[in-house]
Amino acid sequence: MATMKLASWASSLEYDSTPSSVHRAAVRSFYNWAGCAIGGSNHPASTIAFESLQPFFGSSTSSLLGQKDKRADAQHAALINGIASHVHDYDDTHLDTIIHPTGPVASALLAFVESQNEAVSGKDFLLAMIVGIEAECKVGLAVWPNHYDIGWHITSTTGSIGAAVAVGKLLKLDSEKMAHAIGIAATQVTGLREMFGSHTKSFHIGRAAQNGLLAATLARNGFTSSLQVLEAKRGWASVVSTVQKLDELMGSLGKVWEMEKNSFKPFPCGIVIHPIIDGCAHLKPEVDKSGKRIKAVYTKVHPLVLELTGKKKPKDGLEAKFSVYHGGALGLLYGKATPALYEDKVATDPKVINVRDKIDVTEDKTLSADEACITVEFEDGSKVEKHITHAIGSTEVPMTDEQLMAKFVDQCQPVLGSHTQQVSDALWKVENAPDIARLIKRL
Amino acid sequence: MATMKLASWASSLEYDSTPSSVHRAAVRSFYNWAGCAIGGSNHPASTIAFESLQPFFGSSTSSLLGQKDKRADAQHAALINGIASHVHDYDDTHLDTIIHPTGPVASALLAFVESQNEAVSGKDFLLAMIVGIEAECKVGLAVWPNHYDIGWHITSTTGSIGAAVAVGKLLKLDSEKMAHAIGIAATQVTGLREMFGSHTKSFHIGRAAQNGLLAATLARNGFTSSLQVLEAKRGWASVVSTVQKLDELMGSLGKVWEMEKNSFKPFPCGIVIHPIIDGCAHLKPEVDKSGKRIKAVYTKVHPLVLELTGKKKPKDGLEAKFSVYHGGALGLLYGKATPALYEDKVATDPKVINVRDKIDVTEDKTLSADEACITVEFEDGSKVEKHITHAIGSTEVPMTDEQLMAKFVDQCQPVLGSHTQQVSDALWKVENAPDIARLIKRL
Repeated sequence: MATMKLASWASSLEYDSTPSSVHRAAVRSFYNWAGCAIGGSNHPASTIAFESLQPFFGSSTSSLLGQKDKRADAQHAALINGIASHVHDYDDTHLDTIIHPTGPVASALLAFVESQNEAVSGKDFLLAMIVGIEAECKVGLAVWPNHYDIGWHITSTTGSIGAAVAVGKLLKLDSEKMAHAIGIAATQVTGLREMFGSHTKSFHIGRAAQNGLLAATLARNGFTSSLQVLEAKRGWASVVSTVQKLDELMGSLGKVWEMEKNSFKPFPCGIVIHPIIDGCAHLKPEVDKSGKRIKAVYTKVHPLVLELTGKKKPKDGLEAKFSVYHGGALGLLYGKATPALYEDKVATDPKVINVRDKIDVTEDKTLSADEACITVEFEDGSKVEKHITHAIGSTEVPMTDEQLMAKFVDQCQPVLGSHTQQVSDALWKVENAPDIARLIKRL
Repeated sequence: MATMKLASWASSLEYDSTPSSVHRAAVRSFYNWAGCAIGGSNHPASTIAFESLQPFFGSSTSSLLGQKDKRADAQHAALINGIASHVHDYDDTHLDTIIHPTGPVASALLAFVESQNEAVSGKDFLLAMIVGIEAECKVGLAVWPNHYDIGWHITSTTGSIGAAVAVGKLLKLDSEKMAHAIGIAATQVTGLREMFGSHTKSFHIGRAAQNGLLAATLARNGFTSSLQVLEAKRGWASVVSTVQKLDELMGSLGKVWEMEKNSFKPFPCGIVIHPIIDGCAHLKPEVDKSGKRIKAVYTKVHPLVLELTGKKKPKDGLEAKFSVYHGGALGLLYGKATPALYEDKVATDPKVINVRDKIDVTEDKTLSADEACITVEFEDGSKVEKHITHAIGSTEVPMTDEQLMAKFVDQCQPVLGSHTQQVSDALWKVENAPDIARLIKRL
């Protein structure tokens, strides 16, 4: 029942019966995703994939974001844009499942739209994105948390399904073909957490986009799978998790919108460091104004912070992403943490190291994961303090449109140069675009 | 350790240090696989995949077996040949794991070889196939039987790894890059048993071939994954099975050859029906010679037979594959069971139904799975009997080269016509071919 329920809900949903708050969340998600994909387009994971697979490319229908003169067939564009959009760990997060939902879905959709002859309107595009993300997050919630605990990278295992539903929606699949598409996607269970820290982590997102695009394309032409892949005795949920809450979650389709719960990362590193960076950035003006030298920085954080990001002396940019100390230093010195501040040369900069080594981190079980207390002690014994109750980017303190724009500009300026603002403006207006393919050509 | 052990074994194995019995098994496996791929090339699963994906095709470097004027890029050729080779459930079986080993490996290799500028010799090709199949079956044995019991289609979940190792071998990857290739392949865990009975079952084989080809291609250019994907705490074996015997199996590399244990299906249906078909085919000459009319056929079989293939009145060809009664009737009427005898019109042929309905099947727990007892009782009360101790195709009674040839001709004649014998001859000589790509063009 769950598979057919999802399929028929996805097939029949209409834009005008979806709340405008969901539309707005979709626009913000797409905007944030596009910035990440452009910003990640020059990363080695993206460029190696491009160079390796170019010999297999078909007709150059589809854009590679941030790559002015490079295009690919839709399958390869979905892969490469998917990799680029996740490679800085800077994309969005559905906090209830830690799925990064837009990557697989938008990568598949965008590549597909450009490969079609017919124009796809902004509203049709956003609707497809919404049903894809709802599908992805609902099936993710249905197997959470055991699925992730076992070792599956939940963004891509569910992302294949989300991408299939999204592309299937644009293809106007009826509910039976939509169910077959879900089946073909679900049987491609891509993504082990063991790959975290390697290029293959972001490959998962691109491959999930491909899996879904392939699934919808085959199902349209009558390729069969199973009409009960999610709930069958040896179906997807049973194989990938000991927890299965399919009926509950499918019952909430169209009632609880997962799209609205999507959040955006203000900093390109593990989310548990965000309260410290946020707090230190808040203290920077006071520290600067005081003109005093810092003696020590005392912080209290949720216990997960040291477990996941306790690296005291990161050797390079990648290790710095797992260092709460580096993050705190960035906040105090620069008032922000951007991809450029996670380059190797920053991790080894004596100015950064000097502040980093003054930071003391204490676990406090009474604090929540998005909370932190910071005390800066100056050499004269005076202090300044900041208590972050909910870090920027949390559900309670979402990033504003202006903050998303600043993030976008920071990521895209080095790639798009003087076109950045124009692209940003066009993306905010996606809902009213008559033809997404034309909009995308500007990226 | 297991991942690096497999990678370095695969990287360093040489043809001349491999037993000639293994070479011979590889030649027979490749021959049988090619016949299946040619025979399955017109099946809807193959043709829908072709039609659906043609818009994405890149340069037509690689042959689609049995399709005279159709070619594709290597990635798509791997997919489509993989589908075709498994779609009649007629390919090979590694009986210890029920992996169908040649499909993912040969589909990837063949497509890849044709996409390269340099000639690949028959020996290099067979060596790559051997290391791929050893890798596939060893990792399969390491997680057997729980992996299959949970619901994974073990041919494709391990096939991605086998295909990556095989293509990696032709690419001469060093052991570290080979390990990364294994990682990129292993993270794409494709294939749920829930798909059995649909087109997606054979899609798994083609997708595994693509997964592996993609993995090796990326790893060659420095794309990173994990050097301990198989054995890590949250690595492949731990995520996909409660049973992990990696050390034991990797210790047996080059000592116990899985390639030699490969067997070939004499009949395109579930292996448990084979003893009945074999026994009935043995009785056919006596039945014909007697000139008498059959009153009843009493059979005794292993209990799995009725559980898996107990369909008394199959409505069409697909259902007939799951009917021991249909199989017995084919043996008595035709002395064989070929794909043509599993077409819908045969399942509904009154002549077949007449014999089928006279067959009585009794479970006998004392019989092994490749054993059967058959008694044909004529209307005058006289009887003829046959006891099959090991069915044709079992380890004890392997198909002879002549039987493989007859199977090949039966599959390929309708597709290749008068070229069939010439292609068959060329395939038997694969070991001494100077250039596999040239040999393949004839298929």
